[in-house]
Amino acid sequence: MQLENYIRDIQGFPKEGILFKDITPLLNDAKARKECLDTLVKSLKNQKIDKVVGAESRGFLFGILLAQELNAGFVPVRKPNKLPYETISASYDLEYGTDNLEIHIDAIQKGDKVLIHDDVLATGGTAKAVCELIEKLGGEIVQLNFLMELTFLNGREKIKEYDIFAAITY
Amino acid sequence: MQLENYIRDIQGFPKEGILFKDITPLLNDAKARKECLDTLVKSLKNQKIDKVVGAESRGFLFGILLAQELNAGFVPVRKPNKLPYETISASYDLEYGTDNLEIHIDAIQKGDKVLIHDDVLATGGTAKAVCELIEKLGGEIVQLNFLMELTFLNGREKIKEYDIFAAITY
Repeated sequence: MQLENYIRDIQGFPKEGILFKDITPLLNDAKARKECLDTLVKSLKNQKIDKVVGAESRGFLFGILLAQELNAGFVPVRKPNKLPYETISASYDLEYGTDNLEIHIDAIQKGDKVLIHDDVLATGGTAKAVCELIEKLGGEIVQLNFLMELTFLNGREKIKEYDIFAAITY
Repeated sequence: MQLENYIRDIQGFPKEGILFKDITPLLNDAKARKECLDTLVKSLKNQKIDKVVGAESRGFLFGILLAQELNAGFVPVRKPNKLPYETISASYDLEYGTDNLEIHIDAIQKGDKVLIHDDVLATGGTAKAVCELIEKLGGEIVQLNFLMELTFLNGREKIKEYDIFAAITY
């Protein structure tokens, strides 16, 4: 099965000049979704995972499936003011200015083996911010995995000290 | 196991006077999360489900777990301008004014048996909008299920023609 066949190209979304990779056909096909999940799990080579951290909001999807499969806790990382309990935050660069991501202070325990998941590795900015949050809480990052990597954006450079896996590369 | 023990009360979030029910402890505990998922699945009494529809963004979490467990497609319903392909929309009332929810036009096929999932049944406004979207596309709603129902808000009234289940009631 070619997972790429379940990713739909949308020209000009969210704005002109962008070719958006739509994952909804993959989500909507139980067999392809299972194959994608298996590919992500296999890439971990049976390493123990205590927590899977998923970035809002498309990272929640395979993030919680991975947590379920690995019998691990699931931890959401969210945009500012979305998490209700006490948080810490890390900033990342946007095209103009910066934004923040937050995590609950009690979401990760010191020494927890952590898998980070997001749908796309693009410039690597949000991935780096998520790494910062986890390490501030004392977690140990085992791997970052992604459904897709847009290799021409060189996101890997920003997180090169970590193990990285993507199910599909462009 | 008492699932209620994994829901944390947060006083004054997102604003004064609101007692927020925080599901992150439930997400972060693999055993409790599994038990909650099993409870939701059991409530369906083996009825066939083709698609699980989850509302942005906390509805994505158990929504996609349900889809995985039921071997069904997962369909996200999102806030305006988040879905990249062609959409239809339905509006719902906010405290002041209205907002919209969108679904991809090809997400549901005519006659699909659909399970709707969201984390909380509160006033029922978003649940009713999701029902509208699914029926516009010709889907057949088998059940709406929720992690929690806030019974004092009478949300059930707005969707009383459907089968409704909540794992936890307040």
